[in-house]
Amino acid sequence: MSSSLSKLYQEELFERVIPFWERYSVDTAHGGFFTLLDRAGGVYGTEKYVWLQGRQVWMFALLYNRVEPRPQWLAMAEGGARFLRRFARASDGTFHFALSREGSPLGKQYSIFSDCFAAMAFAELSRANGDRELERLAIDTFDLVYRRLPRPDRDPSQMDVAPPTGVALPMMRLSLPMILLNMAVEMDGILGSSRSREVVETCTDQLMNVFLDPRTGLFRERLAADGRTVDSPNGRLVDPGHGIEAAWFLMEVGERSGDQALVDRATEIMLTTLEFGWDRLFGGIYYFLDIDDKPVQELEWDQKLWWVHLESLLATIMGFRLTGRSECLDWFHRLHEYSWARFSDPEYGEWWGYLNRRGEVSIHSKGGVWKGCFHVPRALYRCALELEKVGL
Amino acid sequence: MSSSLSKLYQEELFERVIPFWERYSVDTAHGGFFTLLDRAGGVYGTEKYVWLQGRQVWMFALLYNRVEPRPQWLAMAEGGARFLRRFARASDGTFHFALSREGSPLGKQYSIFSDCFAAMAFAELSRANGDRELERLAIDTFDLVYRRLPRPDRDPSQMDVAPPTGVALPMMRLSLPMILLNMAVEMDGILGSSRSREVVETCTDQLMNVFLDPRTGLFRERLAADGRTVDSPNGRLVDPGHGIEAAWFLMEVGERSGDQALVDRATEIMLTTLEFGWDRLFGGIYYFLDIDDKPVQELEWDQKLWWVHLESLLATIMGFRLTGRSECLDWFHRLHEYSWARFSDPEYGEWWGYLNRRGEVSIHSKGGVWKGCFHVPRALYRCALELEKVGL
Repeated sequence: MSSSLSKLYQEELFERVIPFWERYSVDTAHGGFFTLLDRAGGVYGTEKYVWLQGRQVWMFALLYNRVEPRPQWLAMAEGGARFLRRFARASDGTFHFALSREGSPLGKQYSIFSDCFAAMAFAELSRANGDRELERLAIDTFDLVYRRLPRPDRDPSQMDVAPPTGVALPMMRLSLPMILLNMAVEMDGILGSSRSREVVETCTDQLMNVFLDPRTGLFRERLAADGRTVDSPNGRLVDPGHGIEAAWFLMEVGERSGDQALVDRATEIMLTTLEFGWDRLFGGIYYFLDIDDKPVQELEWDQKLWWVHLESLLATIMGFRLTGRSECLDWFHRLHEYSWARFSDPEYGEWWGYLNRRGEVSIHSKGGVWKGCFHVPRALYRCALELEKVGL
Repeated sequence: MSSSLSKLYQEELFERVIPFWERYSVDTAHGGFFTLLDRAGGVYGTEKYVWLQGRQVWMFALLYNRVEPRPQWLAMAEGGARFLRRFARASDGTFHFALSREGSPLGKQYSIFSDCFAAMAFAELSRANGDRELERLAIDTFDLVYRRLPRPDRDPSQMDVAPPTGVALPMMRLSLPMILLNMAVEMDGILGSSRSREVVETCTDQLMNVFLDPRTGLFRERLAADGRTVDSPNGRLVDPGHGIEAAWFLMEVGERSGDQALVDRATEIMLTTLEFGWDRLFGGIYYFLDIDDKPVQELEWDQKLWWVHLESLLATIMGFRLTGRSECLDWFHRLHEYSWARFSDPEYGEWWGYLNRRGEVSIHSKGGVWKGCFHVPRALYRCALELEKVGL
């Protein structure tokens, strides 16, 4: 990596993002990671969120495996994994959502994504340290998640269909096949290629043939538990960030399997979603929209979120490399200009998470219940690689 | 009511708010009320939310009982109550959260406030039509709610402690004693005065001695299940709108029982909350703040919501009448100027619900999952009465 844009992404990652988490997130007394961190890294709450513990373990194990085997990166990942194994796993093999600083589970809330990120964390770390028991735990946890993917041939009571906030109708969510697709790619070597291929095929089929709306070319965020579309605010919801992230997961699948048609279709979905989701007045990508332009119920619909823009940076540069379409590069530059000017915080490191519609910082923190060490470093790392490949 | 400000509130209520719900919300085919209504009253979704069904029944029964016995108001209330009784009540006596247009329960989500507003609805309607069975149902439902109020002498597993979104720790919420206090006042004649007095005393005690933070003079929104304060984002949360609404519930209790000290303390809390919650840059009252000014997790924290401003209009004018403090009247005028210029929509009727920090309409609808026929008409009606009493 030596070209100029790629270098910018690398420097941000290794000089201003990773050091932030190394310095401020480690709980040396009880293990695990703080994520309630203010602008300068001060801890404003000590609860530990299992999604974010798993994601940070995964990130540091990945840096160790793919960038450089620095002992402190392995130690970070192992410390987080120890905390997760000791405290986060319930007796039925699922993971709690949140723990106290010391590791006691905080109530009964469950999110299947706690399990997803724990599995990814254990898989990546077992590659680094060769721990076979950890690898087994990763596979078992993956199986537990995959068994709950809604499918027509499955008992609905065993599927993961969750009522969206404020509405009680259980619905299938785009995020589950999307994350499972990414997990199957990430855990390829551990799951075995035939197993991985089966999961990839199932999830690709769900994304392209069930969640993709043929009329608009956009992914719907939620479907009825039986896969039908629902003409309600929840059924019409579009989360452009999810759609764009799912698109690069699909591009990656297409690239690996040599399926250029899938790459092309995923790129098209990405471009359609960007056109649909871009705020023509103030710039940036909306958080939520109604597929038919009816009123949404999500009060935060017009905010501009860090992960949406980082995943879009990666999706556009990846789309450009894989298809050569100039629109992808135009979008990358537009997103680059928008995002770096507003989300990055050179003074204190890490990126802001939440901007209002006008692109002004709305929440003055670097981490929270949903923001940890994941989207910023993953996207910076992968963008740097993509930029180098295309000579930028 | 004849003075000029009072007249303005009355005209808004009877010419531009009540007619909106009469015209657009009634489902003549299946009963009950639509609340997913766009700016002009168009239905953009047909799900029926039990909170809002109960609140609308209550509102129309109240208009019939206190303003004028118009047969169409009684018919509105009775139609809604029929739908609620037929479809909304589960076999254990609790109420579902949401129903399909036809009345099938949509999933398992539960909110104790569905029960609260059903009880208030049945109580007010039974006053109008003398239906003793409905009155009995109101009392039974009230008892069911009251038994679940968190109290030190109660079995925690039987109490209503809910994990806030994104965090799994079960917590006591300000809203439950607050609503129970208002229910006990509203259902006074039906519950019997000694029962009502007991509930009022218990809830007043919780608000003033458990939820009120002595250092800041603000209500905390959430406490641990055992009543302790929690130094976390959830434990530090302040919802100024809830605090101000609770303050007028307490003023009303003080006025009824001749307890001027309580009226004075409630007025002081209201003024403290307004000072704390007012946006000095753009005006309006924030939706959520951290009691120690640390970062909040609620993305919508800086939005300006209709109900917050309407409840504050009522609280300030009521505080002025009951204490004569000029600050109350100053705040009323400031809130009046802010709210009428931004929330009311003379062209189509009803008020907008959600403004961004700058006071611009953010969600272009008149009703939704959480906004129905309740805060606007209740506050306009009660403000008109208060304004008349103080000669404005």
